[in-house]
Amino acid sequence: MPDATPISDASTSLQAWRLKLAYDGTDFAGWQVQPGLPTIQGSLASAIRSVTSEEVLPQGSGRTDAGVHALGQVVSLKLAVPIPPDNLKRALNRILPTSIRVLEAGIVAPEFHARRGVLSKTYRYTLFLCRPTKDVEEIVCSPERARWVWQYPAPLDVAAMMQAAERFVGTHDFTSFAANDPERKTRLEAESNAPDNIRTLYSSAWTLCGDELSYQVRGSGFLHHMVRNLVGTCVDVGAGRILATEMEKILVAKNRGAAGPTAPPQGLSLLEVEYGSEDLSDKDKRA
Amino acid sequence: MPDATPISDASTSLQAWRLKLAYDGTDFAGWQVQPGLPTIQGSLASAIRSVTSEEVLPQGSGRTDAGVHALGQVVSLKLAVPIPPDNLKRALNRILPTSIRVLEAGIVAPEFHARRGVLSKTYRYTLFLCRPTKDVEEIVCSPERARWVWQYPAPLDVAAMMQAAERFVGTHDFTSFAANDPERKTRLEAESNAPDNIRTLYSSAWTLCGDELSYQVRGSGFLHHMVRNLVGTCVDVGAGRILATEMEKILVAKNRGAAGPTAPPQGLSLLEVEYGSEDLSDKDKRA
Repeated sequence: MPDATPISDASTSLQAWRLKLAYDGTDFAGWQVQPGLPTIQGSLASAIRSVTSEEVLPQGSGRTDAGVHALGQVVSLKLAVPIPPDNLKRALNRILPTSIRVLEAGIVAPEFHARRGVLSKTYRYTLFLCRPTKDVEEIVCSPERARWVWQYPAPLDVAAMMQAAERFVGTHDFTSFAANDPERKTRLEAESNAPDNIRTLYSSAWTLCGDELSYQVRGSGFLHHMVRNLVGTCVDVGAGRILATEMEKILVAKNRGAAGPTAPPQGLSLLEVEYGSEDLSDKDKRA
Repeated sequence: MPDATPISDASTSLQAWRLKLAYDGTDFAGWQVQPGLPTIQGSLASAIRSVTSEEVLPQGSGRTDAGVHALGQVVSLKLAVPIPPDNLKRALNRILPTSIRVLEAGIVAPEFHARRGVLSKTYRYTLFLCRPTKDVEEIVCSPERARWVWQYPAPLDVAAMMQAAERFVGTHDFTSFAANDPERKTRLEAESNAPDNIRTLYSSAWTLCGDELSYQVRGSGFLHHMVRNLVGTCVDVGAGRILATEMEKILVAKNRGAAGPTAPPQGLSLLEVEYGSEDLSDKDKRA
């Protein structure tokens, strides 16, 4: 049992927690809890209730869409029950389906919230190239990889896609790559400090490894569907429907219609969320 | 279109096909078709019907159980419609769920049947070691691997398991490792030329690779649940409940109760089925 700490107000009896999660999003209707549908947030809330008997709604760093995966989603929540971090992690993993795993659990400063203080997020999107060149018979994607990739059936000009991706690095208005969902947009803006569609991408690159072509992008933040729209646009470049040199024009258009289509969800994984140092674990102080 | 060949009787108008399949068995009630349940055989029959309008029940080299996977299941069937092998493969893969893939399709000698003339079968069973030693904090299995491994929560003596596995090599009566299902046994014996539980294992070995411990076994044939019972027994050895030197005694007992428990299905994959040369593709002759 940890030592009792002086209680100055009601909220100090709750401890703030940070969890790092991995999940296979295939069989879930996304992160956000929805009545009657399997969700990551709902499954986690239910597992937390089983372990602690507490009703909490864990907050993710962002809401991954239906079918989107995570290998490093960060979650914040507050619990009254004192429990050693390793015990909470083990207990949650015993209850959660094996498609959702708690990779890390730790006690953090009380002000930590998974959606605030985000320095960067990193996503990866993976295509399986069923037909890298016109001369090649279709390559079959193993069922071992099927849930994690977009199986793309035609040759792509990978060099052109690499050039296109480079042009997204920097600070831009990404309106052309944001889903047209005004209601969600207003709600997200109210929650964040970003009043517009300007974001900074620190890196944006395609890598070819065997039959898989992966896009990895790290940025200050991402608009709804932004990674999938960047991917869909790069694929349009690879397929010869747009030139890599047109990316600047598409950004300047600030019009969703100017960019390519939204790539399907199964290729996308949230890899990492980075926070400012003041939000890091202060286990020593608290436990 | 292939040249018409002289028709000597009604059956010669059908062409014999050999397919090689990979599947993620997690969401299927096994290979064998069952009313109202998703099965591999049923899904394949339905895809063949969509492509060819022919009602056929494809025959597998064996019936994998619910939750068991394959990376090289072999299937035989006969079709009336003339179709180039690559076209059949592509068309089936367009219709099948991505959890089932046709890796190869070819026209073979009319006498080919996937359950006959089998020289050997190779299976792999994979454990994910959540806790390789007592000193180590539990290692979390990524959701990327969760459908393909048995997550084992305690330390195992891998060297002892390797010794136990070696002792299965050779020709033995494997009654102690066969499921007690008399009805199925009688049916299988009626179909095969093996009137008893004697089988020959050509190789049987454990390999440790990172956090995964895999058992690969190649043999003349396998009784129902035999690989999973060999694995369960080796795990009993690894956990210190049986000695590696007791394997001979267990074989001699010819009693299912003498061996260890049946390992769960999700770690098991059928890797390869090898046939005698007379059963190989004779594409040149036929197409």
